[in-house]
Amino acid sequence: MDPRVREHAEVIATHSVDLSEGDNVVIAAPPAADDLAVALHEVIGEHGANPVALNGNDRFSHAFLRSREDNFETPAHELALIEETDVFIAVRANENVTETSDVSPETNAAYSQAKQPILDERLSKRWCLTQYPAPANAQLAEMSTPGYENFVWDAINKDWEAVREHQQQMVEILDPADEVRIVSGETTDVTMSVSGNPTLNDYAEKNLPGGEVFTAPVRDSVDGEVLFDKPLYHQGREVTDVYLDFEDGEVVDHAAEKNEDVLTNVLETDDGARYLGELGIGMNRDIDQFTYNMLFDEKMGDTVHMAVGRAYGDTVGENNEQNQSAVHVDMIVDMSEDSRIEVDGEVVQRNGTFRFEDGEF
Amino acid sequence: MDPRVREHAEVIATHSVDLSEGDNVVIAAPPAADDLAVALHEVIGEHGANPVALNGNDRFSHAFLRSREDNFETPAHELALIEETDVFIAVRANENVTETSDVSPETNAAYSQAKQPILDERLSKRWCLTQYPAPANAQLAEMSTPGYENFVWDAINKDWEAVREHQQQMVEILDPADEVRIVSGETTDVTMSVSGNPTLNDYAEKNLPGGEVFTAPVRDSVDGEVLFDKPLYHQGREVTDVYLDFEDGEVVDHAAEKNEDVLTNVLETDDGARYLGELGIGMNRDIDQFTYNMLFDEKMGDTVHMAVGRAYGDTVGENNEQNQSAVHVDMIVDMSEDSRIEVDGEVVQRNGTFRFEDGEF
Repeated sequence: MDPRVREHAEVIATHSVDLSEGDNVVIAAPPAADDLAVALHEVIGEHGANPVALNGNDRFSHAFLRSREDNFETPAHELALIEETDVFIAVRANENVTETSDVSPETNAAYSQAKQPILDERLSKRWCLTQYPAPANAQLAEMSTPGYENFVWDAINKDWEAVREHQQQMVEILDPADEVRIVSGETTDVTMSVSGNPTLNDYAEKNLPGGEVFTAPVRDSVDGEVLFDKPLYHQGREVTDVYLDFEDGEVVDHAAEKNEDVLTNVLETDDGARYLGELGIGMNRDIDQFTYNMLFDEKMGDTVHMAVGRAYGDTVGENNEQNQSAVHVDMIVDMSEDSRIEVDGEVVQRNGTFRFEDGEF
Repeated sequence: MDPRVREHAEVIATHSVDLSEGDNVVIAAPPAADDLAVALHEVIGEHGANPVALNGNDRFSHAFLRSREDNFETPAHELALIEETDVFIAVRANENVTETSDVSPETNAAYSQAKQPILDERLSKRWCLTQYPAPANAQLAEMSTPGYENFVWDAINKDWEAVREHQQQMVEILDPADEVRIVSGETTDVTMSVSGNPTLNDYAEKNLPGGEVFTAPVRDSVDGEVLFDKPLYHQGREVTDVYLDFEDGEVVDHAAEKNEDVLTNVLETDDGARYLGELGIGMNRDIDQFTYNMLFDEKMGDTVHMAVGRAYGDTVGENNEQNQSAVHVDMIVDMSEDSRIEVDGEVVQRNGTFRFEDGEF
């Protein structure tokens, strides 16, 4: 087995989820990630913890969701499993990234809603979401499998303390701030308040790879227009050039070049799906290619991303409202050209370069 | 996908576990059985039930058990999952049937003991154990994969009502009986009481394929010697010519031609592992080859099998003691030649032919 698989498992166990003796652990992974799941079982054994492996095979979801299109209920047995676990490790890997592309968005949304209590429970645990470099994911990234393996493991098996220190400079700007304005070309100009909402430093505790700083916009404060010029892959379908128009926090108009119905269904999931739950600044320059994979793409340097839907509880201050939704869908704006981030009226990033990297502006 | 996979899933759902709307279902299957798990998800969706898929990959067990050799605890999260499920479907299939062959028998036994409460809970549900015809299982059976597929699906996708009726004739002999004597050649002559213990008709409700009638010996009543002349595959290792000598129910002497240490460890698991928990009569003539797979082998016509360890609760009468153990290990005697089964002094089977099939003897 490639020694980087074992390193990956060790980063998960020791850095991301802080595995301890006696921990009950759920690993949710598809068969395409079996090598990593094997390495995780080895590491879990060494730590004296207790693994249960869920088979997150897209073929199963496809078969189930095509044969039962609605009237979903929250599976009490799955909820009980998650309630009693200490650690949840989710591994993404695909045999075919478009396996569920012919499941209707309505069905997907209904199923997500039924499973919301399980997601809530998972997010209350020590958890980690990571990627195994399967051939189908390499294909989506338009890379060879060995080339994609290099990309994934270079992004994951690294010095996360150095990443933390670099990013902390941006946290210190955004955390005490009130207003953020994001401008890109003629198509994006949006302002929002982040007042009272903590800014977090993602150095791969929950997302592996990490590499962003993020917070939640104050729910009703978002105003303006955004064109997300990086494509979105959602439920096996590509949505391009997503356009959102915000008034008092709410999406009042939307469009997309391709597969707009996927976007419409996301926004119609529930009330909270039309409000932003996250503003993130991608700062990981080791992620130097767009690979149609949000776990990596949102961390790219020279980008910002915003998510409609659920806000993470720890990014919402006690006097602000936490946006609730069954969905959390990230979308990305390229900030590398003709773009700027302003915080309380001062430019803190221009064309991808931060003020603390170049004192000039 | 081979249409027999879908038929297999339907037999499981409608015949074996009687799937109903709203049922919570756990499917435990390795990736080698993914096709059947896909078909099960489809059928589960059609029934309006809720699936959770566990990945029963032997590579995971191997990695975990090699890195944590003892001090196991019962995983509370896995137990909670099983407590809240209505149906448990276990599918066997291997990529390599000897994957766990270098895990020590002591480790296997300790792990089995820790998981005993989970097994108890599973057995209290509607459950089914079946086999998917993976290439490694075909190899163990010394058959081509297509040939083995024919063998497995012929044995599984069949008229279980006809099987039930045929077997009921033997149930009616054994159920009211007191003493059973089994004689084969010069090497096996054992007597036991089954008085007060119900005889069950296995027509594939829990084991798929089914095809046996079985009961529990009265715990302390077994006396005599048995040479199990069919090999046993246990924890990835072949044990041949198992010899057991019983006095007052207990195994007081044992031997095996090959891998005797595996047998010794089974018998030393706990007190109950040295007593019989089952006597079974294989009656399924559609299973016409020995394939080194107990799920099939024990159902073969012209065989009997006995299991050391745990007795199934429903084969023990209320005035008899149920043998308790962390193990239940079946072993087979070929009854096709120079053999007989006597019930209360009358021969009911000679050289594999039952009295109700041939009134001659």
